[in-house]
Amino acid sequence: MTKQAVFYHAGCPVCVEAEQNVALALDRARYDLEIVHLGQQKGRIKDAETAGVKSVPALVLDGLPFHINFGAGLDALK
Amino acid sequence: MTKQAVFYHAGCPVCVEAEQNVALALDRARYDLEIVHLGQQKGRIKDAETAGVKSVPALVLDGLPFHINFGAGLDALK
Repeated sequence: MTKQAVFYHAGCPVCVEAEQNVALALDRARYDLEIVHLGQQKGRIKDAETAGVKSVPALVLDGLPFHINFGAGLDALK
Repeated sequence: MTKQAVFYHAGCPVCVEAEQNVALALDRARYDLEIVHLGQQKGRIKDAETAGVKSVPALVLDGLPFHINFGAGLDALK
């Protein structure tokens, strides 16, 4: 059974680097990967916050938030 | 051809969580994963610094450093 992986970003250079390396390095046989641009999908900011995301880029794996380097705080995207 | 992935940690709870989730989620068909405990392998701190690692846990993918959440600064491990 695959687990859920959600990569939240905002299109920033730090975000793109994390997406192209960390997010795309996940084992897709084990993880369903969804990529969410919070700048374009502001309705998903609440989901990210609920999962514990404070900044982007961030990867939520099976419900646990992992912040990867630092691009922008969520407050800057609202 | 597989790429190199090095996960640097120091045994802290934040490190363990990142290891068990992010590091072990990598696609091992594409990445050779090495896990380095910098508290026990202080000789590797210089390698981590050279790759741009500032804190643990961190994942270096194909030479690029990605800091995952924050456990401890490298200086605290010297």
